[in-house]
Amino acid sequence: MDCKQNYTLLCDFYELTMGNGYFQTGLADRICYFDVFFREVPDGGGFAIAAGLEQVIDYIQHLSFSEEDIAFLSGKQIFSDAFLEYLRSFHFTGDIWAVPEGTPIFPGEPIFTVRAPTIQAQLIETYVLLTLNHQSLIATKSNRIVRAAQGRPVAEFGSRRAQGSDGAVLGARASFIAGCAGTACTLADRIYGTPAGGTMAHSWVQMFPDEYTAFKTYCELYPNSTTLLVDTYNVLKSGVPNAIRAFKECLLPKGITNCAIRLDSGDLTYLSRKARNMLDEVGLPQCKIVASNSLDEYLIRDLLLQGAAIDSFGVGERLITSKSEPVFGGVYKLCAIEDTDGTIIPKIKISENRAKITNPHFKKVYRIFEKQAGKALADLICVHDEVIDPEKPLELFDPEATWKRKTITDFTMQPLLVPIFHKGKLVYRQPTIYEMRAWCSAQIDLLWDEVKRFENPHTYYVDLSQRLWEIKHALLSQRG
Amino acid sequence: MDCKQNYTLLCDFYELTMGNGYFQTGLADRICYFDVFFREVPDGGGFAIAAGLEQVIDYIQHLSFSEEDIAFLSGKQIFSDAFLEYLRSFHFTGDIWAVPEGTPIFPGEPIFTVRAPTIQAQLIETYVLLTLNHQSLIATKSNRIVRAAQGRPVAEFGSRRAQGSDGAVLGARASFIAGCAGTACTLADRIYGTPAGGTMAHSWVQMFPDEYTAFKTYCELYPNSTTLLVDTYNVLKSGVPNAIRAFKECLLPKGITNCAIRLDSGDLTYLSRKARNMLDEVGLPQCKIVASNSLDEYLIRDLLLQGAAIDSFGVGERLITSKSEPVFGGVYKLCAIEDTDGTIIPKIKISENRAKITNPHFKKVYRIFEKQAGKALADLICVHDEVIDPEKPLELFDPEATWKRKTITDFTMQPLLVPIFHKGKLVYRQPTIYEMRAWCSAQIDLLWDEVKRFENPHTYYVDLSQRLWEIKHALLSQRG
Repeated sequence: MDCKQNYTLLCDFYELTMGNGYFQTGLADRICYFDVFFREVPDGGGFAIAAGLEQVIDYIQHLSFSEEDIAFLSGKQIFSDAFLEYLRSFHFTGDIWAVPEGTPIFPGEPIFTVRAPTIQAQLIETYVLLTLNHQSLIATKSNRIVRAAQGRPVAEFGSRRAQGSDGAVLGARASFIAGCAGTACTLADRIYGTPAGGTMAHSWVQMFPDEYTAFKTYCELYPNSTTLLVDTYNVLKSGVPNAIRAFKECLLPKGITNCAIRLDSGDLTYLSRKARNMLDEVGLPQCKIVASNSLDEYLIRDLLLQGAAIDSFGVGERLITSKSEPVFGGVYKLCAIEDTDGTIIPKIKISENRAKITNPHFKKVYRIFEKQAGKALADLICVHDEVIDPEKPLELFDPEATWKRKTITDFTMQPLLVPIFHKGKLVYRQPTIYEMRAWCSAQIDLLWDEVKRFENPHTYYVDLSQRLWEIKHALLSQRG
Repeated sequence: MDCKQNYTLLCDFYELTMGNGYFQTGLADRICYFDVFFREVPDGGGFAIAAGLEQVIDYIQHLSFSEEDIAFLSGKQIFSDAFLEYLRSFHFTGDIWAVPEGTPIFPGEPIFTVRAPTIQAQLIETYVLLTLNHQSLIATKSNRIVRAAQGRPVAEFGSRRAQGSDGAVLGARASFIAGCAGTACTLADRIYGTPAGGTMAHSWVQMFPDEYTAFKTYCELYPNSTTLLVDTYNVLKSGVPNAIRAFKECLLPKGITNCAIRLDSGDLTYLSRKARNMLDEVGLPQCKIVASNSLDEYLIRDLLLQGAAIDSFGVGERLITSKSEPVFGGVYKLCAIEDTDGTIIPKIKISENRAKITNPHFKKVYRIFEKQAGKALADLICVHDEVIDPEKPLELFDPEATWKRKTITDFTMQPLLVPIFHKGKLVYRQPTIYEMRAWCSAQIDLLWDEVKRFENPHTYYVDLSQRLWEIKHALLSQRG
């Protein structure tokens, strides 16, 4: 964007009342640790995809209160003058670890960890959550749709139904990381380099005296990138015949066969097969058929099962809002605080709902791979300073059903979270959007097919180390 | 916001390829008319609420291409130099009529009409739709939730689960217009004046050696606006007793009884009634009980039916994403073009799906009220220059089942859309957010209760004038 928005005030108001409270009670410099994790994969899927880190980095780097912000807060008449003065020089001085964008992630494991003085760690809660939640949601949904299309390109078309401008632009960004081939959103291309494309709306066809003239005019203007929308009047009686006539008159004489038609309504299987036959019969086998119209992963899977002759898909509202499940439930929970002497005191949040009990302590996560197959076997959450020796057998166990144990020997391991900020300084090289997209695809290849099913996927193991499990259970017994 | 984002490039790429096409074929200055309308009320409701106009106005006023935008487009190598030069001085010169924010709206009627040269009218499609769709969606959902709460205040709490920053901030704005009492989102307050509030998270309680100390500290810091979160450990065994002790020790001696507790998990009916008894028994009948935790209009209705002792609600993800129906399907359709001599030529978009056939022509809409009851009876869509005399009987008929006719006599009428831009100049006084909120509430009062039901609401009449119906059917027969 031309100007960077400062999102420091995009916080829940309680973060400021708590901040002022910590400041006034001498807890401002207390170091604490927060984790972001989520509890359920949207749409009953086997994994989610992390996205949004680049925007969080940008936010952290710009964290500061303007004079106007301070004046606004001062007007609330509940913040102490000393706190408002403190906000004048406020910036982030802590450490952040996070999962790179495009990485498959699983419920219960930290995907983002902050170590910072209380006020800082508390203030960033809302923006960090909303950004990781939004983009991980759209990346996860987009990847399902891309996988349903079995190699056929999927373009993101949903800006007009997005929930606000960022919903459109950052949604397009997340969908590209997760495998979409492009977007209709011009601004996403301009800012993030996600290739934008698009040719015509029904209004183009209506602006001309007849459909054929509209098509012919378009072919003459854009001979090398022509996709004609054939459903303004009647697909088979008028749209496809007029498109064929325009292609034959304007493109074939120039030797151009790189053209397409788009179906945006009706029975896409029937219409695409009929249109395919009509195109093939007149010597246009290279003409592609693009389909759009409220598609999602299930409809695309069904269209292909039915033998639809569709070469690529445009997907709009059901992708850009993740319509079937529009909330990614990432949470931000305190997991430890440091004593004044630097000792880390693990903290736990108890709940009657067992799934809502948090994993305490400053942690790290390893992804464990079977050496032979090269596939991911489990994620192991450990205490931050634990040493796992990949040369020694490793015992994994279900943290809920601890009698379910398994010892593995031939494995490799990789840390899931990487350092992003150290003492307030960015220590991470931001990958390009193409690197993130390639990383996403490669990491998904390391998952077993069983985890990738749409229905009843295999539950991937997210286990605790013995030491972490013991710390958690000691805290639970104290509170119980 | 501190800097205004220019959203000119937040368009679908096809708007630019079509724009270049219109420019190159001499159609750039052709005047055309587009309507925004929607086809179905979300959640099966009886009406929706229009919102987002202020942001559309802002967008239209800032419509322009920067040198960087032009350079970006030039790099695509498909736009003519003359078109790119034309974009350098591009701005909006047309007319816009729209429904004021907060107005109840119904399927099929224009809520926003543009009259402008082709390229301008086409380019604004995406941003206009995404903004009206997003905010109308959230306003519509929020108003359902507010009505379910039967006068109890509802605060919007959803930023962390919103689909992007605008989803959070503009969602909070739309929810306030639709009747929410406030928001947790600080930036929404700073920019739009929607009052932000909030007190503490579970992390506040965890930061202190014990719950009582956390509560006492908070009461001492904010004696006049204390809401204590009582479910960090155990609501009835620990949270409420510690809150009572803190209130009695810190607030009552100062004569303060204006306090509250918040329940954020568990069985809200059971816990709220038990907590109410405990508070009443110790002489804290004024202490309010706030409830939150994945609420929506159905859960709130059920809680109140069950006799929950809840005084106000915090509603998050299900409001800010309109989770049960996260898409508002507003569309942008060409309805007429002008001949070079100024004659208006109505245009229609045909579809095999009858509901997708558009209403042609440059139109206006009247809301018809029964004179005696003062309630809205129907909306009447007419040709732009039709004169309806409220002194004469008016025959209304169902545009689908034309034999269903009704003649009304005692009625008043009000134009639904008002002028916003005339020849590119803003001619509308933007109401304050409090005025929009009051307007919304007053306009909903003019609807019959039957239209406001959650389940199976009465279908409000949206009729065509005889003249418009005849124009539509003549066009349908021509195309048929």
